Amino acid sequence: MSEFDTAMAVEAEDGSGARAVLGAGWVIGAAVNGGVLMALGAVALRRAVERAGGHGDPLVLSAYFLSAAQAGPVRLRTEVLRTGRSMSTGQVSLLQDVDGRPVERVRALATFGDVDAQSEPVWLAAEPPDLPGPDRCVAAGRESSPFAGPISLLDRLDIRLDPATVGWAGGRPSGRGEVRAWVRFADGREPDLTSLIFFLDALPPVTFDLGATGWAPTIELTGHVRGRPAPGWLLVAVSTRNVIGGLLEEDATVWDSRGRVVAQARQLAGVRMPSRPVTASAAGAAS
Amino acid sequence: MSEFDTAMAVEAEDGSGARAVLGAGWVIGAAVNGGVLMALGAVALRRAVERAGGHGDPLVLSAYFLSAAQAGPVRLRTEVLRTGRSMSTGQVSLLQDVDGRPVERVRALATFGDVDAQSEPVWLAAEPPDLPGPDRCVAAGRESSPFAGPISLLDRLDIRLDPATVGWAGGRPSGRGEVRAWVRFADGREPDLTSLIFFLDALPPVTFDLGATGWAPTIELTGHVRGRPAPGWLLVAVSTRNVIGGLLEEDATVWDSRGRVVAQARQLAGVRMPSRPVTASAAGAAS
Repeated sequence: MSEFDTAMAVEAEDGSGARAVLGAGWVIGAAVNGGVLMALGAVALRRAVERAGGHGDPLVLSAYFLSAAQAGPVRLRTEVLRTGRSMSTGQVSLLQDVDGRPVERVRALATFGDVDAQSEPVWLAAEPPDLPGPDRCVAAGRESSPFAGPISLLDRLDIRLDPATVGWAGGRPSGRGEVRAWVRFADGREPDLTSLIFFLDALPPVTFDLGATGWAPTIELTGHVRGRPAPGWLLVAVSTRNVIGGLLEEDATVWDSRGRVVAQARQLAGVRMPSRPVTASAAGAAS
Repeated sequence: MSEFDTAMAVEAEDGSGARAVLGAGWVIGAAVNGGVLMALGAVALRRAVERAGGHGDPLVLSAYFLSAAQAGPVRLRTEVLRTGRSMSTGQVSLLQDVDGRPVERVRALATFGDVDAQSEPVWLAAEPPDLPGPDRCVAAGRESSPFAGPISLLDRLDIRLDPATVGWAGGRPSGRGEVRAWVRFADGREPDLTSLIFFLDALPPVTFDLGATGWAPTIELTGHVRGRPAPGWLLVAVSTRNVIGGLLEEDATVWDSRGRVVAQARQLAGVRMPSRPVTASAAGAAS
């Protein structure tokens, strides 16, 4: 069984509950990665929706992050709000016991349907960016930067950053607010609908490209699944256009190995900007 | 009292409930406008969050549309999930009685905080598009097109469409998937945080610009509030990059009269594309 499938193993508890274990291998610093939590929530809710008679492919999921999840047991509480012929909607909460009482980590709403019935024809689609192949990109391993040490998550992934958007790793952020990378699971597991939800938040935060060195905690993330991914590398591009006060939006687009848009996300995240942030014009003047 | 404030009048019921009335003046065809429902949900949840001791400005709200709301009474059920020093998160459901039993229309999650503490400094921001002033744009009144007849909502609004993105009204959609407009309340009420949530879904669907003539029902919409709007016109730009199968994402950005980004949204919506849709290249070839 692949590492990701082990992480997604959900044990049914009763009509509206399930249990799982968050592994220590999916941690960023002091918290379990948000993408793992979203994907796990989608797995539990999918089952509840299918039991209620609905199609079970995630089409859209909105997750609100309430407190930092820790490695260890987690309970999933599901509620099916509506089942329909083509789409069904539900809610899922992830809870962990802290000092004997349940603390909610994430609450999410999601709509499920039949993704294959919604992925043809392609009337209009974002073109994949032009970047070198994975072998000519920069591997983002745990040893690649001082930031990366505490990120056990990086061992689960094979991330190859576009050389044009990796200046920040050498102290030269571009200031454009863009990061692009090829990504796949390190153990060779192929992407599927559930893992798309995970990959929507697997890249380094786009704020690294603006000179911020701290993490950018997600407040809310909404992901859309637009197609079933073909086997092989995924190409993920993240960008931001509005960094205001201590908040930014981060948009992600995911293409599969055929160049098809298979997922999108927008998140609202927090950031502590450096007192003299790098902007594209300043970076241009300095080079 | 302005029309919008009348629509937002929420009467507290008990600890976690409230009542309101959806007016017939906010209808698009057979359903109450989704922006009104989202804004009303935000008003009810704001009160619950403030009662629990949290800051009450909406920062992000994700609404899932479950069934079409009708003019008439609506119940709002709120739940505060977490209150924090800077941000608090809650959930709200809008329900209407149908044949004597409650039917859920919308469920939403939202995070509240202090928007003024999050709107300075502007590190990076999307520039407002360059379009003619409101007086040189195209008024989108109820009498302006055959589509607009059943849309009582249009009487509440003053929408001035950019001539460059209004070709669809005369049967010549551009195929670019873009609509831009100045917008304000018809009765002169100034924009505020609550109405920003409403304005995030007040423009004609961007699919009109791709040759689709039917409505594009919202499945899910997530809005971010990025600043308190100055008095005057709002400028709203909506666009899509991915129309696949029967679904599209529609992104909205809202600038205030000072040219500041004050809100953003992305929604997943359904669309029935014409058998020969207009694309930008086809539109170019035809002109």
